Amino acid sequence: MRPDLPLRLRAAIRNIPDFPKPGILFRDVTTLLLEPALVADAVEAIWEPYAATDVSHVVAVEARGFILGAGLALQRRLPLVLLRKPGKLPGRTIAESYDLEYGQSRLEAHADALKPGDRALVVDDLLATGGTAAAAGRLVRRCGAVVVGYAFLVELDGLGGREKLDHPAVISLVRYRADDGPA
Amino acid sequence: MRPDLPLRLRAAIRNIPDFPKPGILFRDVTTLLLEPALVADAVEAIWEPYAATDVSHVVAVEARGFILGAGLALQRRLPLVLLRKPGKLPGRTIAESYDLEYGQSRLEAHADALKPGDRALVVDDLLATGGTAAAAGRLVRRCGAVVVGYAFLVELDGLGGREKLDHPAVISLVRYRADDGPA
Repeated sequence: MRPDLPLRLRAAIRNIPDFPKPGILFRDVTTLLLEPALVADAVEAIWEPYAATDVSHVVAVEARGFILGAGLALQRRLPLVLLRKPGKLPGRTIAESYDLEYGQSRLEAHADALKPGDRALVVDDLLATGGTAAAAGRLVRRCGAVVVGYAFLVELDGLGGREKLDHPAVISLVRYRADDGPA
Repeated sequence: MRPDLPLRLRAAIRNIPDFPKPGILFRDVTTLLLEPALVADAVEAIWEPYAATDVSHVVAVEARGFILGAGLALQRRLPLVLLRKPGKLPGRTIAESYDLEYGQSRLEAHADALKPGDRALVVDDLLATGGTAAAAGRLVRRCGAVVVGYAFLVELDGLGGREKLDHPAVISLVRYRADDGPA
């Protein structure tokens, strides 16, 4: 990773207080997406740690994960597997639940999207508590495939996400402390 | 567009009967996304008709539109603007409603995502009745920007989508008659 990339990303990510509710400082990547050279550098940096591995599939989590995932898959000419919210995938699916602050949600995969022997890189825009990403990992493994690693644009430290994934190859391009101000 | 591309896309798109409800034949692009060379050709073909124009922004509709949109934006080094379902965008938004079969839905844009003078290509995976894409076009124009064109992977003929958009530069890579069988 170019040494100035995290700072450039921080400068391009907009901080929005009290979204989606009071007290939460939201890291808004939509402003980053308006800077194509920076997006290209981010996609390259996401891939760098896995370049020497044998990743066979990019696995992207709905919805913002599709952006980084599709970019990476296109750039590296890798198949792209979508993990979607319930009821969106039309074929035979498998599902994994994960906890939200209130209640639960589910993530689904087409049962035939990955096969034993496939080696998946799971991609999303944000690692916070890790609930969604961990569910993504379980879906990959239930297909008999291997999780080569997890890659995120933004990581919120202090919410236990990295610990929950418990995998040697979790990478993120920018880290914020969950209780940080915009500085 | 390579002359064999529509046929290759048709072969890669899976037809799923009775989804999301009885009588509907769903065109499932997830199988296409597993073929990276074909995705790359599709992204190139989507761009081709606009290559001589002065597109300044790719505008992508949630959620599957993010895939083609992110790929195209990365490939052409263009800013990517997200149009999202209600409540997802954290900044100040503008919204446009569109009709669903039962009831209505809304599409939102960040009010500052596009400026007067910007020239947007609106991208989604599917053109059916055109309700969503037309709402996308209205959002672009409410920002003072121009819709250079609309680009879709799949178009279902016979549902009035193309007519509703009423724009000279609507392109799609594969067309199905809405009442077609899988043939």
